[in-house]
Amino acid sequence: MQSEPKQWTAALAVIGDEILSGRTQDRNVAQVAAWLNEQGIRLAEVRIVPDDPKRIAEAVNALREAHDYLFTTGGIGPTHDDITVDSIAAALGVPVIVHPEARRILEDYYRQRGGLTEARLRMARVPDGAELIANPTSGAPGVRIGNIYLLAGVPHIAASMLDALDGTLEGGRPMVSVTLGAFAAESDVAEMLREAEDRHPGVSVGSYPFLEEGRYGANFVIRSEDGEAARRCGEELGEALAAAGYEVVEGGI
Amino acid sequence: MQSEPKQWTAALAVIGDEILSGRTQDRNVAQVAAWLNEQGIRLAEVRIVPDDPKRIAEAVNALREAHDYLFTTGGIGPTHDDITVDSIAAALGVPVIVHPEARRILEDYYRQRGGLTEARLRMARVPDGAELIANPTSGAPGVRIGNIYLLAGVPHIAASMLDALDGTLEGGRPMVSVTLGAFAAESDVAEMLREAEDRHPGVSVGSYPFLEEGRYGANFVIRSEDGEAARRCGEELGEALAAAGYEVVEGGI
Repeated sequence: MQSEPKQWTAALAVIGDEILSGRTQDRNVAQVAAWLNEQGIRLAEVRIVPDDPKRIAEAVNALREAHDYLFTTGGIGPTHDDITVDSIAAALGVPVIVHPEARRILEDYYRQRGGLTEARLRMARVPDGAELIANPTSGAPGVRIGNIYLLAGVPHIAASMLDALDGTLEGGRPMVSVTLGAFAAESDVAEMLREAEDRHPGVSVGSYPFLEEGRYGANFVIRSEDGEAARRCGEELGEALAAAGYEVVEGGI
Repeated sequence: MQSEPKQWTAALAVIGDEILSGRTQDRNVAQVAAWLNEQGIRLAEVRIVPDDPKRIAEAVNALREAHDYLFTTGGIGPTHDDITVDSIAAALGVPVIVHPEARRILEDYYRQRGGLTEARLRMARVPDGAELIANPTSGAPGVRIGNIYLLAGVPHIAASMLDALDGTLEGGRPMVSVTLGAFAAESDVAEMLREAEDRHPGVSVGSYPFLEEGRYGANFVIRSEDGEAARRCGEELGEALAAAGYEVVEGGI
């Protein structure tokens, strides 16, 4: 009997009042999720928490223990509301230190940009024991401590930190997904979807309705770590939809 | 001595594998947050959880106790992956019933649309004791049970359910926010921001950097339930920024 391969999971803590106030549309959940999929790691949970040290620490301690990896976005800049490093150090019970390499990076970066002020030096502070994550975009590095990865909140900077981490995390098989679209009311094909999922263990079939140019339809997303199983399930569902008279669009609508 | 007015808080549970896989960009956090602000209720926490009954129940029980209100989005449609009603009923320890009024609404809605199938009837199922939330967009109603409000996952349908709920929840004073923008590196004005916040109790000052046409800048968001205090703080910060030589853009950049 084959043993089940380990399922690697990660959580994400999005830190910031600006997301909870509705002022800023989060972009990091989707990009961290997609990146994790490529590493063979499943994003299993997200919490969005305010700029409050106690609430950040609670979320961090719950999530780092429940998952293989914890990512955070936001709150590692130079201003007074950037409290992620301090909150996570408190959660771990370690002091905050100025990381010598981070200081050197910032000195270099700001040499032609007005010099390393006290505010900018805040971005060299890390929980004691941390390593740096390269920031190819804007100098100030990300931070790794234990299984926790602290990324910037600005999406294009977070993306560049993810690029720097590419291939460095242990993971399993990437998730394979197959998408089919049809102008079918999902309530008309609900039974077909359930059957497709039931016939293929380890495969999940999601149904996502939309309204497009006045017509209701849905995209059906078939996902599995077993790419062959996902493809077979997609083929069968496509044939069943076609047999019921729907035009099926591979890749979704 | 005046007693502090009650601070009303809500949490949001976003339910759905499609958000955690990165396939779908969530739009509900921002719109629920903005709507809650208008009701004088602060969105204090968000959790994004997968289509897993146990994980949904855990999140629901944690959040409904910690906050005045809990909203959920997603998982109330007609397909097999729509398990929010069942998961919340299990969390509350109540059975699932077919709500007579919901059944009547669906019968009416589907009379000209192919009739009420078994799959469509799923959307009349509610935790025992629940009331309905009107859905002016697409028939199938939302659900309220206790302090939990179950909304659709499709953003424009969720928006229409929020419209239907407008003014029906008890809340406090709406949050007032004042935004200023400047092409200032936030590390250059960090001290100014901290001072502005320190001088005005009950006011928070957030700093959100951006890169726009090759220039770094930041928007500064001053928030308070005391609108007068937010405006005063914004004025002072604007004057301080102008005195330091920055061009200040009211409303942000």
